[in-house]
Amino acid sequence: MPKSVTGPEIERLIQLLSRLPGLGPRSARRAALHLIKNRENLLEPLAGATREAAEKVKICSVCGNVDTSDPCVICSDERRDPSVIVVVEDVSDLWALERAAVLNCRYHVLGGTLSPLDGVGPEDLTINNLVSRVIEAQGTISEVIIAVNATVEGQTTAHFITDQLEGQSVKITRLAHGVPVGGELDYLDEGTLAAAIKSRSDF
Amino acid sequence: MPKSVTGPEIERLIQLLSRLPGLGPRSARRAALHLIKNRENLLEPLAGATREAAEKVKICSVCGNVDTSDPCVICSDERRDPSVIVVVEDVSDLWALERAAVLNCRYHVLGGTLSPLDGVGPEDLTINNLVSRVIEAQGTISEVIIAVNATVEGQTTAHFITDQLEGQSVKITRLAHGVPVGGELDYLDEGTLAAAIKSRSDF
Repeated sequence: MPKSVTGPEIERLIQLLSRLPGLGPRSARRAALHLIKNRENLLEPLAGATREAAEKVKICSVCGNVDTSDPCVICSDERRDPSVIVVVEDVSDLWALERAAVLNCRYHVLGGTLSPLDGVGPEDLTINNLVSRVIEAQGTISEVIIAVNATVEGQTTAHFITDQLEGQSVKITRLAHGVPVGGELDYLDEGTLAAAIKSRSDF
Repeated sequence: MPKSVTGPEIERLIQLLSRLPGLGPRSARRAALHLIKNRENLLEPLAGATREAAEKVKICSVCGNVDTSDPCVICSDERRDPSVIVVVEDVSDLWALERAAVLNCRYHVLGGTLSPLDGVGPEDLTINNLVSRVIEAQGTISEVIIAVNATVEGQTTAHFITDQLEGQSVKITRLAHGVPVGGELDYLDEGTLAAAIKSRSDF
């Protein structure tokens, strides 16, 4: 956009919005206009919410979740089973699993996956913290569920974690492969179908 | 998302982001996490930019553009031809025309189109302001280019404006219909093709 159309403050807002995932330069302009047109019920609340998040949000020092308290609400929730830890790549995976609402345990956010090509080694992830958590719990952790993505990097990371936890008296499990609920066989890849057949169960 | 996963501040941020055009609940969560992970170079600047926009942005009292000054940079730009006014539906259309960089004139933002079904009448738009602008210019405005969208509502609004400006010594023009540059005939509707043939020019 030529410099002369609008003020530098608005251009800066557009530029920042365009860096959000899911918004490009064009949709960022639309979002900025939408904000400006809804100043009282959207722009001002968003200004407050972003300021508050910038000041208050912390990374939980135990599990890596984001929250305004440390330890986070999950780690400090007494009603959750502390003997099961679910290992995820990212906070968004933790949130996704919580939406499924089948787990009532603790989490551990790795902060990514091992990826030698991108220069991500074990020291860039929180794998050491996970091992320390298990050791320091002195046998009270009975199961570590490795819930990483079903990608090559995810599976490599899962194997590395399994190696690191060797010798600890803890059961290590992983998510099942199979047909997604509501999925059509015709659209699935061979790997998924093979896994679904291999892990078939009685009807 | 269950209440217990993260702090209320983060949930409020997600909820506000999900109200931006182009972001749904899921992408708003991703955007919020992206902001939190990039606190210093994205979340804090965005908090500043939204606050600044909320405090400084005005609607230009002459043309309806958004800017931090009133009159806006376009209306106060002496190098622009004040004798031509381009009438657009929305500020985003003004910005789009400026990106095309073929006009060097003034604008008038209607704020929508006439739409009886949605309860939008002439008094909800800035049509009266436009007529006043033309009258008060005492003949120094030579042309009004009606650049509304080629929709039924847009064309209805264009006809209404033409009626309102009747009797003023001003030329009223509209954008050409035709084949979009780079467009393929096979994908165009019959109305566009008919208009393109009717308005054909010498090669």
